[in-house]
Amino acid sequence: MAIIGIDLGGTKLASALFENDGKIVLHNEDALENRNGDQVAILITHSIKSLIHSTNGNVQAIGVSVPGIAYRKSGTVWAPNIRNWESYPLLKEINQVAPDIPVTIESDRSCYISGEIWKGNAAGCENAIFIAVGTGIGAGIVADGRIIHGANDIAGAIGWMALQKPYEPQYVDCGCFEYNASGNGIAKVAKALLKNNKEYSGRLRLKDIEQLTSHDVFDAFDAGDELAIKVITSAIEFWGMAFANLVSIFNPEKIILGGGVFGPAIKLIPDIKKEMLKWAQPISVREVDILPSQLGPSAGMYGAAYLALRLIKEKGKIHV
Amino acid sequence: MAIIGIDLGGTKLASALFENDGKIVLHNEDALENRNGDQVAILITHSIKSLIHSTNGNVQAIGVSVPGIAYRKSGTVWAPNIRNWESYPLLKEINQVAPDIPVTIESDRSCYISGEIWKGNAAGCENAIFIAVGTGIGAGIVADGRIIHGANDIAGAIGWMALQKPYEPQYVDCGCFEYNASGNGIAKVAKALLKNNKEYSGRLRLKDIEQLTSHDVFDAFDAGDELAIKVITSAIEFWGMAFANLVSIFNPEKIILGGGVFGPAIKLIPDIKKEMLKWAQPISVREVDILPSQLGPSAGMYGAAYLALRLIKEKGKIHV
Repeated sequence: MAIIGIDLGGTKLASALFENDGKIVLHNEDALENRNGDQVAILITHSIKSLIHSTNGNVQAIGVSVPGIAYRKSGTVWAPNIRNWESYPLLKEINQVAPDIPVTIESDRSCYISGEIWKGNAAGCENAIFIAVGTGIGAGIVADGRIIHGANDIAGAIGWMALQKPYEPQYVDCGCFEYNASGNGIAKVAKALLKNNKEYSGRLRLKDIEQLTSHDVFDAFDAGDELAIKVITSAIEFWGMAFANLVSIFNPEKIILGGGVFGPAIKLIPDIKKEMLKWAQPISVREVDILPSQLGPSAGMYGAAYLALRLIKEKGKIHV
Repeated sequence: MAIIGIDLGGTKLASALFENDGKIVLHNEDALENRNGDQVAILITHSIKSLIHSTNGNVQAIGVSVPGIAYRKSGTVWAPNIRNWESYPLLKEINQVAPDIPVTIESDRSCYISGEIWKGNAAGCENAIFIAVGTGIGAGIVADGRIIHGANDIAGAIGWMALQKPYEPQYVDCGCFEYNASGNGIAKVAKALLKNNKEYSGRLRLKDIEQLTSHDVFDAFDAGDELAIKVITSAIEFWGMAFANLVSIFNPEKIILGGGVFGPAIKLIPDIKKEMLKWAQPISVREVDILPSQLGPSAGMYGAAYLALRLIKEKGKIHV
């Protein structure tokens, strides 16, 4: 018995054939290059056909992770980084090449936490949250053994968390938490400080301010730069408050941190935990573990395969 | 076929016999008076025996709402306002008087939202949150059709939400949100302003400061008192931020407001919604309705009965 797990990313497609115990039998990667719309779907369906062929038709279920929102009722997908995928009928396209095989399509964030629950740092958990901090911030949430989707499949939009009055106009496009503590946000906060602090002459002054990234800020932080310390200290407070809120709301066993920022911010977990301990429900926060992603870039592919496996185990019901 | 719904409150026990469609056939209330520990359990089991007797043994399931935490694995209950109910074996006591009838015990907050989903302002919703703002603040959350319990049954502790840096020592016993926007919190914030604002000579100055309640603050607010306006305006900001966070995280269809403060704060819903619109995920916040509890003091009893009904419908699985 074999399961297909597919992870569509912003720049490449990863696909694999899994055995039920999580062993990968075949693994492919394809660059998306300049594909858009139907071309991306063709890449996916071609990959599926090829994997089915390799098993002589012995595939039991297919899971797909998409970089955006998977609308469960319609089987359509919104993916902001793929042109013409505002409401793309991906389920229909897959059903056409694999008409008899059950398919589940989920958001990347939901797949990340599912992968970590299957084979990563949240193994066996019924209550766990994957927090992806990259250019933006989002969460994949499993509570009482099931993925949280919400009424319109847009639950987990934690970048919008309100954490500091007063409201600032710059929150309008991304939310307060994301503005202050995403990769983009860290760069923006550092740029604003550089513009307003004429006396500062540290190493970030040597950078082209418009090109400044969060990685520059982390490098300067590691070198003891005062402006970078100010920016990262503020981000630690925001991460601590936001993760504390998720702990108070969900009482999870594990919080798993991933994305480009965790990454370099993994070493800050003890500082973040210290901040969380101040704010969160005191019993829940003492019981939760804060851990880096174990599967890293493979989390989505593992998660997609696990959700496909669950799909057949639970006879047509889609949940972790 | 009949269902028993029981709502244990801080001062009284309400119990009723329901038909499957939600019609109440029999309804009793008993004051707890000074009962504690076993005496409260005896009141519950006596009430159950009496209702079973009245149907000639034709009761299909029993649901119980408790003012605290229901630990699902052990069948025990923690209820801070009932002496000797730190870890009370309530399920065992009920099983002894009704050995063949399935029983579900849930926290009052989870029962409130279940009641509103069955017969109230969240009728038919799969994603809805009951926010109880009284002396404290807590939430009963149903996501994708199921109650959120968390790893140790203490999910929904939203009073601990972090909403404003820096951390203040007075948050240690109750959390930032509860300190600033619960009934107790509103009274505390007003008292602190009264002590620090010697020039104020409005109507709250005439009150015994130690006896001041949130109801006094709401009365003064309605009369246009400047200090009360300051306190309630701040509470509106905190409610708006916290409810916005729940909307971004859960993408619910309805938020139902109850507890002693909503109550007088119901008329502030338009102001709270305005605040939410600034902070929350923009699609989710436009789609959510913010409504008062329809069932009021009966929400727990209806919710307990509904969860009992679900228990038999789903053959032994406990969920909404």
